[in-house]
Amino acid sequence: MAEQPITTRAKDFPEWYQDVIRVADLAEPAIVVKGAMVIKPNGYAIWEKIQRELDNRFKATGHRNAYFPLFIPESFLKKEAEHVEGFSPELAVVTIGGGKELEERYVVRPTSETIIGHFFAKWIKTHRDLPMLINQWANVVRWELRTRLFLRTSEFLWQEGHTAHATHEEGLQEVLRMLDVYADFAENVMAMPVIRGEKTMNEKFAGAVKSYCIEGLMQNGWALQAGTSHDLGQNFGKAFDVKFQNAAGQSEFVWQTSWGVSTRLIGGVIMTHADDAGMVCPPKLAPYHVVIIPIFKTPEEKAATTEVGRKLADDLRAKGLTVVFDDRDNRPGSKYFEWERKGACARVEIGPKDLEKKSYAFKRRDLEKKEFAPLDNAVAHITGQLDQMQKDMFNKAKKYRDENTKRIDSWDDFKALHEGAGGFSSCHWCGDGKCEAQVKEETKVTIRCIPLQNAKEDGKCIKCGRPSTQRVLFARAY
Amino acid sequence: MAEQPITTRAKDFPEWYQDVIRVADLAEPAIVVKGAMVIKPNGYAIWEKIQRELDNRFKATGHRNAYFPLFIPESFLKKEAEHVEGFSPELAVVTIGGGKELEERYVVRPTSETIIGHFFAKWIKTHRDLPMLINQWANVVRWELRTRLFLRTSEFLWQEGHTAHATHEEGLQEVLRMLDVYADFAENVMAMPVIRGEKTMNEKFAGAVKSYCIEGLMQNGWALQAGTSHDLGQNFGKAFDVKFQNAAGQSEFVWQTSWGVSTRLIGGVIMTHADDAGMVCPPKLAPYHVVIIPIFKTPEEKAATTEVGRKLADDLRAKGLTVVFDDRDNRPGSKYFEWERKGACARVEIGPKDLEKKSYAFKRRDLEKKEFAPLDNAVAHITGQLDQMQKDMFNKAKKYRDENTKRIDSWDDFKALHEGAGGFSSCHWCGDGKCEAQVKEETKVTIRCIPLQNAKEDGKCIKCGRPSTQRVLFARAY
Repeated sequence: MAEQPITTRAKDFPEWYQDVIRVADLAEPAIVVKGAMVIKPNGYAIWEKIQRELDNRFKATGHRNAYFPLFIPESFLKKEAEHVEGFSPELAVVTIGGGKELEERYVVRPTSETIIGHFFAKWIKTHRDLPMLINQWANVVRWELRTRLFLRTSEFLWQEGHTAHATHEEGLQEVLRMLDVYADFAENVMAMPVIRGEKTMNEKFAGAVKSYCIEGLMQNGWALQAGTSHDLGQNFGKAFDVKFQNAAGQSEFVWQTSWGVSTRLIGGVIMTHADDAGMVCPPKLAPYHVVIIPIFKTPEEKAATTEVGRKLADDLRAKGLTVVFDDRDNRPGSKYFEWERKGACARVEIGPKDLEKKSYAFKRRDLEKKEFAPLDNAVAHITGQLDQMQKDMFNKAKKYRDENTKRIDSWDDFKALHEGAGGFSSCHWCGDGKCEAQVKEETKVTIRCIPLQNAKEDGKCIKCGRPSTQRVLFARAY
Repeated sequence: MAEQPITTRAKDFPEWYQDVIRVADLAEPAIVVKGAMVIKPNGYAIWEKIQRELDNRFKATGHRNAYFPLFIPESFLKKEAEHVEGFSPELAVVTIGGGKELEERYVVRPTSETIIGHFFAKWIKTHRDLPMLINQWANVVRWELRTRLFLRTSEFLWQEGHTAHATHEEGLQEVLRMLDVYADFAENVMAMPVIRGEKTMNEKFAGAVKSYCIEGLMQNGWALQAGTSHDLGQNFGKAFDVKFQNAAGQSEFVWQTSWGVSTRLIGGVIMTHADDAGMVCPPKLAPYHVVIIPIFKTPEEKAATTEVGRKLADDLRAKGLTVVFDDRDNRPGSKYFEWERKGACARVEIGPKDLEKKSYAFKRRDLEKKEFAPLDNAVAHITGQLDQMQKDMFNKAKKYRDENTKRIDSWDDFKALHEGAGGFSSCHWCGDGKCEAQVKEETKVTIRCIPLQNAKEDGKCIKCGRPSTQRVLFARAY
């Protein structure tokens, strides 16, 4: 059966994205459940590694995991005015339980600020109970009209951190600490460079005082919001009556934060690294590190290459790598093709001539050339190459991002850029939400963030020409 | 504030169970969401360790994780007649999405055989796609009327394995392999001895050909079904048209299995090991391994005991243990009390006199006596004691289970046992489901399982006196 080809990025980026997911066997649309997806083993393996890496970082910063109900009483959503306005259009509602109409309907959690606020009110009594640092790994449901695998699905998997603090300052420290955790993870694990910044009021989380984000740049010049961290102020504290007695014996509302990343990150990995031949995955998240393919014609050759190949596979597994020894009956060429599409980080070929020379052929997924290396140093060489691949992938993505981040000072240049190759444009903005909305309406371009530690600089708003004190980052976005 | 006392097991076992969960801070009823619970950090820490241990075992036996939709089209449930009959009374139904009445209603998954059957039909084409070995970690919802923390809640966390095979024999091997994985986990990680057996037709999973289980015995003489593994035969294969082309080119339905354990296991840990003073947890699952309490009056004593205590804490953490250095201001006695209730495996006290003698006081949670041991060998001694504790807890539980498993041959003895101390009764049974149902109606006692490798033995049914060829295991059960 002939394999369906992969559309090129240049021809149709969204089509290419779907093709990569299909050939790498990462996920598929559920179809029978509107907007939902099935995360297949290769995709879920990436998510498990994301979870492990993040969870270690959350615990190292003092957080503990807990689990709150999937169902939230509909009345809870209404307690925070902005929150209910933001989430109402996206809710799935349970109206029947155990064969009976429910007295109070439940929404399936779109996020858990409300139900967790309710429990924080029960658990927090005095300043000695603070800070309360909780994280939850969970599924959430948001009824989306236009869905796209990993990036926007009616159900997705995520983590949501929820914390409560005695002062606004401590809350803000937490918000920025977790933003740094996300940025460190994105750059050092996903090999995806990100800009840390503050969301504008138009783009913030419904119910937050201020939202912060990390933004990556995909290969089509669109931005991806990869993680958010929210300063909730006392908004949910007041809505759910979460009070504590301070050291002076007075009753105060707590200051809360929340922060999350989701399975959308897998979409970010694909759109940052994959190429026209299929999936490319940074070694720290890869479902397959090394595929070893024995090459033989005679039974003797098969025995000899298998013995050496299996031994190498075991030695690499002992280093914690995921290794496939692929001795299926197909031709080697079809195996190369398959594992390239699936994004195995490296391929090792061992044939009779290699054995004579005590060497093997080695091909890194992110490089063009195949090289030959001595077998007796194989483990050190391969693990070293994977470490280097992780770094090279980050540097390549950073170079792309930097080259596609431009200072733009005129509306014509702005339109030309965003109607063309796209990318981040660093432009002056007057600070007026109406101006921002007008840009979005005319060009679909949004302010991705006001970068942290932004240089103050006098200028004129890219849209209206009024005075501005700083540049912000614009882009088309998922 | 005076601490609420713990009811004793002898006085009121269900009350004691709730008290332990409360004082150990493991979970609490959600109340605002009918029958649901919040799993608090101490409880969730146990679940995370359960997950890690099981997941490693699933992967070692060739399974890969995936994720399927939470929502299942209502029509799917109806495709397997017995399945829908079993689960209908327990369904939560989503009827509204994005503000609109849905055309097809969704049930919130009570288990995923149906939706996974649907995808298996898409993924499986030939015998080369088999066996398909999938596991899912997920939340499920079953609308229960009478709920009990961990044991029976309207939403719970679990894993569900789903596999497809080319022959019935291979399917059955899988069913028993995973039953062995569960038994190994229960005994060597949870320190809970279990009996492996086959369920009667009355007690099997709705939609299975045959169900297998592991059963533990709780301290009140009731049994706990701790894990199940189902031979689904071709029931779901036929319902969802899951066919493959065999090596001879013929089309056949696959043979499927499913198997699961849930957060109910945490209830099993509590009811197997906890005591009248609070939680007791086997070290392999404990949220807290060692609590180190410095004892001092003067600032000099505080400095000296803190230095030694913190050093020991670091050394133990380097061995992978979870250690609390508890230097809060409260009196040592109140700390002992708190950590005993919370089930920290071991307590270390370091005071000025201990430092003079270069020793420390050591108390294992499962033993009465406190001992003194030399500081210079502390790490080896403490880790050794925790290993021993894991074994001792299993042996103690096994002794209890064995002492409370009795061969019973008369109906009067049967009633006396199960109206009294309870436990497992090993009795002859004619094999008739009506007889089994009558026993249940009169005594609430059920057949927990027909043990694997059961000795064949002639006898008379405990209820009706008709001939029987084997003994089965009866008990009251959760």
